[in-house]
Amino acid sequence: MNKKMVFSTLGKLTVSEAVLMVFPLIVALIYRETKVALSFLIAIVVALVVGFTMYLTCKTSNKLIFAKEGFVIVAFGWLIMSAIGALPFVLSGDIPSYVDAFFETVSGFTTTGASILTDVEALSRGALFWRSFTHWVGGMGVLVFVMAVLPSVSDRSIHIMRAEMPGPIVGKIVPRARETARILYIIYFAMTVAEVILLLAGNMPLFDSLVHAFGTAGTGGFGIKGDSIASYSPYLQWVITVFMFLFGINFNVYYLMLLKKFKSVIKSGELWAYVGISVSAVAIICINILPSFDSFWDALRASAFQVSSIITTTGYSTVDFNLWPTLSKTVIICLMFVGACAGSTGGGFKVTRVVMLFKSIKQELKRMIYPRSIQAVKFEGKVVEQTTLNGVGIYLAIYLVCFMVILITISFEPFDFETVFSATMSCINNIGPGLSAVGPMASFAEFTGFSKIILSFAMLLGRLEIYPLLIALTPSTWTKK
Amino acid sequence: MNKKMVFSTLGKLTVSEAVLMVFPLIVALIYRETKVALSFLIAIVVALVVGFTMYLTCKTSNKLIFAKEGFVIVAFGWLIMSAIGALPFVLSGDIPSYVDAFFETVSGFTTTGASILTDVEALSRGALFWRSFTHWVGGMGVLVFVMAVLPSVSDRSIHIMRAEMPGPIVGKIVPRARETARILYIIYFAMTVAEVILLLAGNMPLFDSLVHAFGTAGTGGFGIKGDSIASYSPYLQWVITVFMFLFGINFNVYYLMLLKKFKSVIKSGELWAYVGISVSAVAIICINILPSFDSFWDALRASAFQVSSIITTTGYSTVDFNLWPTLSKTVIICLMFVGACAGSTGGGFKVTRVVMLFKSIKQELKRMIYPRSIQAVKFEGKVVEQTTLNGVGIYLAIYLVCFMVILITISFEPFDFETVFSATMSCINNIGPGLSAVGPMASFAEFTGFSKIILSFAMLLGRLEIYPLLIALTPSTWTKK
Repeated sequence: MNKKMVFSTLGKLTVSEAVLMVFPLIVALIYRETKVALSFLIAIVVALVVGFTMYLTCKTSNKLIFAKEGFVIVAFGWLIMSAIGALPFVLSGDIPSYVDAFFETVSGFTTTGASILTDVEALSRGALFWRSFTHWVGGMGVLVFVMAVLPSVSDRSIHIMRAEMPGPIVGKIVPRARETARILYIIYFAMTVAEVILLLAGNMPLFDSLVHAFGTAGTGGFGIKGDSIASYSPYLQWVITVFMFLFGINFNVYYLMLLKKFKSVIKSGELWAYVGISVSAVAIICINILPSFDSFWDALRASAFQVSSIITTTGYSTVDFNLWPTLSKTVIICLMFVGACAGSTGGGFKVTRVVMLFKSIKQELKRMIYPRSIQAVKFEGKVVEQTTLNGVGIYLAIYLVCFMVILITISFEPFDFETVFSATMSCINNIGPGLSAVGPMASFAEFTGFSKIILSFAMLLGRLEIYPLLIALTPSTWTKK
Repeated sequence: MNKKMVFSTLGKLTVSEAVLMVFPLIVALIYRETKVALSFLIAIVVALVVGFTMYLTCKTSNKLIFAKEGFVIVAFGWLIMSAIGALPFVLSGDIPSYVDAFFETVSGFTTTGASILTDVEALSRGALFWRSFTHWVGGMGVLVFVMAVLPSVSDRSIHIMRAEMPGPIVGKIVPRARETARILYIIYFAMTVAEVILLLAGNMPLFDSLVHAFGTAGTGGFGIKGDSIASYSPYLQWVITVFMFLFGINFNVYYLMLLKKFKSVIKSGELWAYVGISVSAVAIICINILPSFDSFWDALRASAFQVSSIITTTGYSTVDFNLWPTLSKTVIICLMFVGACAGSTGGGFKVTRVVMLFKSIKQELKRMIYPRSIQAVKFEGKVVEQTTLNGVGIYLAIYLVCFMVILITISFEPFDFETVFSATMSCINNIGPGLSAVGPMASFAEFTGFSKIILSFAMLLGRLEIYPLLIALTPSTWTKK
C-alpha cells in the first residue's frame, strides 16, 4: 500500500474543496449574509490547512498506485470532502448538530438528496447554494470516478467497464483518462447551462434556476422549498422532468452523438431498456393515479415527473407520492432499485446491470433446455465475457447483503416497516425521499444520530458502488504490501 | 421433447394421488363424515380415470428423457396434483370456491401453509387431515425431486447439487436415484413417527399429533386451530420448535449420521451457518420483545418458536408476531428470504446459497485487492467450481425478478405495502403467514381470485426453485426437438 501517495492525493482533493467553497462564499456575500460568509471563510482555511498539511507531509516521488490505492482514495476522498464540507452548516448555525450537517453533506456529495431539515426555507442563501453545489460537484466526481478512475485501476474493472459502457471511450483507457474527463466535463457543463437557460425562460429566478440545475445535473434532489418542485409552473416541471431523464442517460451516448455516431446510439440496448422501463412505469402509475387528478394531463405530468425523478435517483417531487395507491408505490420502490444508466450521474443498481442479469437468466434457461449448446451473451453488439456476467451477479449479492445489514441496523427506530425499508432503499440508491415517515414531504430528522451515521454510510456505499468502501475497510488492504 | 413419456409419467403420478386420497377417506369414515367421504371417493375415481387415460394413451417404449423433460414433469406434476387434490374440498363444501380450494391445495403440496380460510376450525376432519397430509406428501416429493430427480437431469445440475449437498450421496447419482430415495423416505418417516410419539407424550390427541407432525415434517404449517399452536402447552411448543428446526437441516446430515461419519457432520459449513443465523435471530428478537413478556423464558420460547418456524419456512405461530416491534419484523422478513438448508423440506433461497454468495463476495474483494492472485472458493472441504458459483448468482437474479413481477402484479389489491410485500415473500418462499393484513392470525381470504392464482403460481415457482416452471412455460421447450 502506497500510503504516502494516497494521502497526498487526498490532500490535493481537500485543497480543491477549499476552492469550491469560494462559490457559496460569494453567494453569501451577495446576499449580505455576513455570519454565513464568515463560516465559509473559516471552512476554507481549515480545508487549506488540512489539505496542504496532508499533501506536504506525504509528498512522495513514488507515484505508483494499484487497484486498492485507487479504491481507498475514492472512499476516503468522499468522506473527507463530506467531513469538511459539513463545517459551514454548523458554523453558520444553519444546521447546529454536526451529525446532521455531516448527513446533509454526504447526502449532497453522494447526490442522494435525503435531508434532515424540517424547514428548508429557513436556511441562508449561502447554505442553500452550497447544499445544491455539492450535488453538482458530486455528480461530476462520479462521472470521473466511473469513467476515468475505475477503468484505470485493474484489468477486472476494465472488463466491467467494457460491458457497462458502449462506445469508443472504453478500452485501454489509462492514457486517455485526462482527455475523457475533459470531454465529460464539457458535456456536463453544457447541459447544466442549457437547463439554467430553459428554467430562466420559464421565469424561474436565477438563484432557483442555478440550484435546481445543480440538483438535476447531479441527480441529487436538494431543493429550496418545503414542497420541492410542487409550487413551480407546469412548464418548469416539464423542463426538470426532461433534464432529470437526460442526466440519467449514459454520458457515452452524448459522446457518441458529438462524434455523429448516431447509429451506435440508436442500437444501444441500455438506452432502450432505460426508455422502456420509464415509459412502462409512467403508463402504470398514470392509469393508477388518474382517479385522484382533475385531468389526464395533470396525472401524466405528475407520473412522468415522479418516474423520471426516481429512476434517475434524483428525488425531486411535485406531489406527495406517499399518498398514492400501493401499486404506484410498489412501482416507485422497484424503480428505486433499478436506478439510472451506468456512466451517468444517477445511482441505484443501474439499468445496464439489470439488462445483463436478464441476459444471464436467458442464457441459463437455454443452457438447461439444451445442455450441450454454448450460449454467448451479447450486449451493445459485443460478446460479454463470462467474468463480467459473473461480476454482475456478485454485485447483486453484495448489494443485497449490504441492504439487509443496513435495514436490520436501523430497524430499532420507532418507525413502521415501510419507513425503514424505503429509507434504506432511498439512501443506498442515492435517491432522497422514501415512503411513509420519510416520504417526499417529510424528512430524516426524526432518526437518531446513530441511524443518521449508518445511513450516511449507506449513501457512500451506494454512490461508490460498494467495493471501494469495503476494500478501504478491509484490514489486509492496510497491513500487507 | 418426449411428450409421450412426460404424459405417461404424469399419468402414473395422478394414479398415485388416488392412492394417497384413500387415507383422508378413511379418516372421514372414522369420524362418520359421510358427505366428506363421498367427496374423496369421487376425487379418487376422477384421479384414477384421468391418470389411467393419460398413462395408457401415452404409453411409449421410448423412455429416453433429458433435462427439459424432467423439469416439465416436475412442474406439471405439482400442478396436476394440486388441481385434482382441490376437488374434495369443493365437493364436500368445506371450501366452496374452486379457486380458493386450488390455492389451499397448492399451498399444501408446496408446503407453504398460506390459507384462505377465515375459520379453520369449521372444517371437517377429513378435509383437515387431507390439508396437512398434502404437506407431508409435498415435503417427500421435494426431497426426491431435489435429491434424486434434479441431479439426474443434466450435468450442470449435478454441479449445483455437488455444491449444495455435502457427503457421499452426491456425485454421479443417476444409478443410485432409487436407493437414495428409499433412504430419504426412511429417515423422513422415522422422524415423523418420533415427533408423533413426543407429541402424544405431551397429551396431544392422536389426530392433532398426526396433523402437526405432517405440517412440521413438510415444513408446511397448516394447523387445525384458529390460533395455530398458541393454545398448546409450552412442552408441545418446544417439541414442535425442535422438530421444525430438524426438518430444516439438509437430509444428508442424517444420512452421514447413519453412516457414523460424525466428523463430516461437524465440519458442515452449511449446518453451522444455519445454526448461527438461527441463534443470532433468536437473540435479537428475544431481547427486542422482552418488555412485552412476563418472563424471559416466555420471550425465549416465543422467539425460538417463531425463528424456527420462519427460517424453516414452516409458518406455525404461537404469538401474533405482526404486533412485534419493527426490528423483530425486519429480522423475520430477512429469515423468510434466507430459508432452510438445501436438501431439506424447507423452502426459501436456502442457507447454502447464502453461504456461497458470501464466499463469492469474499473472493471478489480479494481479487480486487490482489488482482493477480487466483482465489479458489472452498465449501464443505471441496473447491467449488466457478460455474456453480455463477449459477448461484444467476439464481439470485431470477429469484428477484420473479419476486418483483409478482409483487407488482398483486399490488393493485387494496392493501398496504407491508401486506403485498410480505404476501409475495411468504408465498415465493413457501412460508405461509406474512405481515399486516396477511399476518399469522389473518388469512389470504381477502385477496381477489386473480391474485390467489398469481400467488399459487408464486408458491409453485418457489417450491420448484423457479427453473422447472419457467422451462415448462418456454415455447421452445415444446416446439423444437
